[in-house]
Amino acid sequence: ESWIYYGLCLPAVCFVWQIAMIILFGIFIRYNEESDAHWIEHKTFNNISSNIENDFYFRYPSFQDVHVMIFVGFGFLMTFLKRYSFGAVGFNFLIAGFGLQWALLMQGWFHSLDPMDGKIKIGVESMINADFCVASCLIAYGAVLGKVSPVQLMVMTLFGVTLYAVEEYIILSLIHARDAGGSMVIHTFGAYYGLSISWMLYRPNLDQSKHRIGSVYHSDVFAMIGTLFLWMFWPSFNSAISDHGDGQHRAAINTYLSLAATVLTSIAISSLSQKTGKLDMVHIQNATLAGGVAVGTAAEFMLMPYGSLIVGFCCGIISTLGYIYITPFMEKHLKIHDTCGIHNLHAMPGVIGGIVGAITAAAASKGVYGKEGLTNTFDFDGKWKDMLPTQQGGHQAAGLCVALCFGIGGGIIVGCILRLPIWGDAPDNSCFDDDIYWECMPSASSNNPCLGPHNTVSIASNVWRQHGTIAFFEMLWVCPVAYPDRGAP
Amino acid sequence: ESWIYYGLCLPAVCFVWQIAMIILFGIFIRYNEESDAHWIEHKTFNNISSNIENDFYFRYPSFQDVHVMIFVGFGFLMTFLKRYSFGAVGFNFLIAGFGLQWALLMQGWFHSLDPMDGKIKIGVESMINADFCVASCLIAYGAVLGKVSPVQLMVMTLFGVTLYAVEEYIILSLIHARDAGGSMVIHTFGAYYGLSISWMLYRPNLDQSKHRIGSVYHSDVFAMIGTLFLWMFWPSFNSAISDHGDGQHRAAINTYLSLAATVLTSIAISSLSQKTGKLDMVHIQNATLAGGVAVGTAAEFMLMPYGSLIVGFCCGIISTLGYIYITPFMEKHLKIHDTCGIHNLHAMPGVIGGIVGAITAAAASKGVYGKEGLTNTFDFDGKWKDMLPTQQGGHQAAGLCVALCFGIGGGIIVGCILRLPIWGDAPDNSCFDDDIYWECMPSASSNNPCLGPHNTVSIASNVWRQHGTIAFFEMLWVCPVAYPDRGAP
Amino acid sequence: ESWIYYGLCLPAVCFVWQIAMIILFGIFIRYNEESDAHWIEHKTFNNISSNIENDFYFRYPSFQDVHVMIFVGFGFLMTFLKRYSFGAVGFNFLIAGFGLQWALLMQGWFHSLDPMDGKIKIGVESMINADFCVASCLIAYGAVLGKVSPVQLMVMTLFGVTLYAVEEYIILSLIHARDAGGSMVIHTFGAYYGLSISWMLYRPNLDQSKHRIGSVYHSDVFAMIGTLFLWMFWPSFNSAISDHGDGQHRAAINTYLSLAATVLTSIAISSLSQKTGKLDMVHIQNATLAGGVAVGTAAEFMLMPYGSLIVGFCCGIISTLGYIYITPFMEKHLKIHDTCGIHNLHAMPGVIGGIVGAITAAAASKGVYGKEGLTNTFDFDGKWKDMLPTQQGGHQAAGLCVALCFGIGGGIIVGCILRLPIWGDAPDNSCFDDDIYWECMPSASSNNPCLGPHNTVSIASNVWRQHGTIAFFEMLWVCPVAYPDRGAP
Repeated sequence: ESWIYYGLCLPAVCFVWQIAMIILFGIFIRYNEESDAHWIEHKTFNNISSNIENDFYFRYPSFQDVHVMIFVGFGFLMTFLKRYSFGAVGFNFLIAGFGLQWALLMQGWFHSLDPMDGKIKIGVESMINADFCVASCLIAYGAVLGKVSPVQLMVMTLFGVTLYAVEEYIILSLIHARDAGGSMVIHTFGAYYGLSISWMLYRPNLDQSKHRIGSVYHSDVFAMIGTLFLWMFWPSFNSAISDHGDGQHRAAINTYLSLAATVLTSIAISSLSQKTGKLDMVHIQNATLAGGVAVGTAAEFMLMPYGSLIVGFCCGIISTLGYIYITPFMEKHLKIHDTCGIHNLHAMPGVIGGIVGAITAAAASKGVYGKEGLTNTFDFDGKWKDMLPTQQGGHQAAGLCVALCFGIGGGIIVGCILRLPIWGDAPDNSCFDDDIYWECMPSASSNNPCLGPHNTVSIASNVWRQHGTIAFFEMLWVCPVAYPDRGAP
Repeated sequence: ESWIYYGLCLPAVCFVWQIAMIILFGIFIRYNEESDAHWIEHKTFNNISSNIENDFYFRYPSFQDVHVMIFVGFGFLMTFLKRYSFGAVGFNFLIAGFGLQWALLMQGWFHSLDPMDGKIKIGVESMINADFCVASCLIAYGAVLGKVSPVQLMVMTLFGVTLYAVEEYIILSLIHARDAGGSMVIHTFGAYYGLSISWMLYRPNLDQSKHRIGSVYHSDVFAMIGTLFLWMFWPSFNSAISDHGDGQHRAAINTYLSLAATVLTSIAISSLSQKTGKLDMVHIQNATLAGGVAVGTAAEFMLMPYGSLIVGFCCGIISTLGYIYITPFMEKHLKIHDTCGIHNLHAMPGVIGGIVGAITAAAASKGVYGKEGLTNTFDFDGKWKDMLPTQQGGHQAAGLCVALCFGIGGGIIVGCILRLPIWGDAPDNSCFDDDIYWECMPSASSNNPCLGPHNTVSIASNVWRQHGTIAFFEMLWVCPVAYPDRGAP
Repeated sequence: ESWIYYGLCLPAVCFVWQIAMIILFGIFIRYNEESDAHWIEHKTFNNISSNIENDFYFRYPSFQDVHVMIFVGFGFLMTFLKRYSFGAVGFNFLIAGFGLQWALLMQGWFHSLDPMDGKIKIGVESMINADFCVASCLIAYGAVLGKVSPVQLMVMTLFGVTLYAVEEYIILSLIHARDAGGSMVIHTFGAYYGLSISWMLYRPNLDQSKHRIGSVYHSDVFAMIGTLFLWMFWPSFNSAISDHGDGQHRAAINTYLSLAATVLTSIAISSLSQKTGKLDMVHIQNATLAGGVAVGTAAEFMLMPYGSLIVGFCCGIISTLGYIYITPFMEKHLKIHDTCGIHNLHAMPGVIGGIVGAITAAAASKGVYGKEGLTNTFDFDGKWKDMLPTQQGGHQAAGLCVALCFGIGGGIIVGCILRLPIWGDAPDNSCFDDDIYWECMPSASSNNPCLGPHNTVSIASNVWRQHGTIAFFEMLWVCPVAYPDRGAP
């Protein structure tokens, strides 16, 4: 019986997948030479003068910033809904926790499989890449926030990470496109993946829950915590895996500037959109981040400070206009409901970022980069030794197309899977409602949206409709706390 | 007509200024040699052994901490008002986003203009200095929180950054005072700048809004997020631009200790101030930070751990007493309304910090610092080769005076500008109220202070009074959501 | 008279102890050679090639992460109670601020006393260790949250830090056990210390306050801020003081993986524990962190990635089951009330961590670590030159026992002291209530739990009962704001 079934479904998925992770890690994953106890011998052998040369000290501070973006940034950005804060931050936590393990394996098989012993060797850079991979799934979560069950999210993440690892391999290794900040690999892919899934899972009767779409005062302030940590640490995100030295340095500066410009233009458009000149928190919470997305690919290039400002300037405008015009349009005419507006924050800026990257790469010259600098920045060595910047521009564009195809194609396929009626997703009139997946304290106060007659009755009645009488009474029996008024019917 | 006008004023300012930034960045700003792609050749040329020698790795972690202080620290510290959390964190975001761009230019012209090509060369240290400059404007914002419009804040920031760059140049370069943590340059200047503006903008009838001055339970908890991030990262703030090696190391230790001592004395005085021994969140949120301000100048000197504790000890007492006695006094007798009490948190501790710095510098000796250490710490080279610590002490004191003059003088002038009736600031009975600048969700709940008849009526009526009948009806027409009771009059 | 007395007690303690700190710091504490101005000469003398070799750059980023865990992590994790958020974050702030100073002294005397001049030399590592020491006291605070007065917390911290320094010296120096992440030294000790105190302070009539034990919607979201910052920065916690290079690198990876596995199993068990499959925020907030605790000791060893996952897997299960079964059992049958469930989050995982560490150490081999690597990782030099891994395993186990004894023994003794009726702790019906120690704004709204007739009356009446008539009327007199209904009796 579906209610019982659902009660066992999530634990089963968590256990089975976590045990699978342990087995696969046991077979495949080992420390790389910089995190292995042999490092001290390795150091002498490669006469590395000091421990500070360990990649850990180049990348760990950036890793921690990225880590904060994944868990607090994405998690709290989605707490804006008045009745879905637990689900936003809690399920974000769940899928990120699973996703990063699966990402270490998938990316490892493609990128860091040691030919000698067939093991994947991990270090701090692997952790950053795993967090990056998870980011694309969390972006996708933004589109379906409040409409899917945790089990669906786990499935979405399983396939999302898999698709990510493949497209990343194709884009970065086969096509040799550069994408340090992941405008294409992370944002374009993740956003279109989520939007396609949301399209496949379209609910015609969602307006039964529309009174829960929207924020209350405090939930908007919580969301600002997410916004600000994403905004502040984005320079670390875009510079985390770029080249040591000037590469990381430049990526941080470009992102810092682009984001600053975005703030002003988002606020300007937000104010213009209201005749009273009032500002809308939705725009401040989201559109102000578009500049970081759009500068992702080109951040490590010689984009120039003013170039970064121009990118940020345009994205602030486009992203805010997207919230005002495109999101309602997509819902009305394309049957795509995008809860967090990821199309405005990740999809469009991601595509712009890919294009900016292609142009910047194509325009690169020895004059601007210096001979060694050019080779170094675009990694023109090995089989790519004789590559020209113009060609690189083409490869960047090709990478963008691959990201788009994987996002849309993958999303449609995974969407079909998620439409199977076995995942225990919320009924149309209980979307955006924590009460269906979270135990809420009986000590309800006016801030506690989980209780109150309206809510419990609506759920009770819908359970009746959806799961039949037995489920209904059983639910009343198993959950006395949440249904004080169970005597009523 | 003023209401319409205001609706266009903010977007216009944002666009014009952002476009100006892009043009000026295009003309003046380039990457410095550590963030330029030529770094790889530069490295070989200056035989720098490793990328880890890039200044990025010395300063970036501190930069990120400072960045958090600016956006989350200052932003959330000001969310304590029950009805002004959006304005606190949102306008903080806006002026910081603009200010840091303008600061890169202003500081660049004074400090890092490359004589060869007339360009400003920026790197991670420039970003830290830009954030520092912005900090002084955010401090000033604390004094006028809830009483000015975003446009006024933009103007305040434009002039504030300009004044800051000039006084910083005079204090650090011309006078050769040392001020790593900015007790004088940032806190003293910023606080007196804000207080003078608040004095110029004094509102005799502010008591019409006094029911909104004060916190609710959750807004006090939000404010603690700001407090703690400021408190925790202050060691990074004071060590961010001090000398590599022992300089940064010592600055972090001194700040860490000073802040710890401040916590105990603030709590002690807070408890003493109530016969019941109860604590006041206002003191915990603000006075506990005074130690970090007061140790700013001397943090990189050999202040000694116990010296830091003494500074923190005194500032905790003085700052808390300031909240209890001086703030009410200033409002009553000096006509200076200081919303966040920046006089207690930044002005007094800043001046103390300048004095402590002067004394510590004057008392410096080869015995304590070592011969090279003394030269290195106080930068006694070039034209300052033969300078003595006692002289340095005098120069520090001179620097403090310059900061005071620029703060007070600049604030008065800018205050006059801000008194012009063209900036669309809130009427006396709508201060400290987000509803006048922010769209609030129609789905109001008891946590949503933006709606409710009282509020809308008060605004409606005041708009009538302030802007005449046409404005009134127009407002009703343009903003149906916020004025459900528009049939009433 | 006790009410007055209490009003003076906290300030007196803060002042006396802070002054004592200043004197002791003056006598004992100096900068170490890496934070002293002589560093520049020291560098030349030891031909250290670059400032980047200063320990500051190896450890400061991790220190800042640990610092965030102490103040925001622990502070906000405890804000989950509907009416005790001020006390959670505020008293956490107070005892951490005092504790870290006392820890620098106590740990200094045992670990870093310079034989030459009898001074304690501090640097960034001392700050990390001080924060670690404070962590154990904050863990203990979790057990007694809401039931003790700030003065009792200060006393608890004074003795807690002292005991910590002694057991740490015995475990790390005398027994030569390794404990980089402090599973034994920090978590096992801290948790049993707190639980023993809670046992000694058992209140039979606590059910008079049980309507305040529990969360409201927003307080659970605040608690997630604490959870996530603890979770994200735990890799820095476990790697902060481990060996430079591979040691820190490996510790971060192991912790990262262990925590990821814990998330899935905690959520699985949480869902299983409800027939509806709903999740409980208490488990998400706490049990998800158990993996970080349990991997603390072994984090720097060659635990292997899959080993970390296994540890996290088990701890997620055990910790969540602890919240479901053990905590209620302990309260009912052992008379131990554990407000935050530290037994499940710190005690059990800490002991597991100690055992895992012992096993991993005993199983160490030259094959896995390499000859130099083994010596380096386990610090087999000096008098421990000829030690074998198997022996080390025994020493680890011995260390765990010492931690347990100090925690339980110390807790019982300190508990006796805290039972003295002189500390002004809250009466049984005012526990978990901020109103008794915090001034609450008169501008009460529905979110403000501090006011409202129920509450004031309950306190008024209990003050009458506990402190007699004079106290009662005096209280009414001194605190007009908090007792609007003082005319009533």
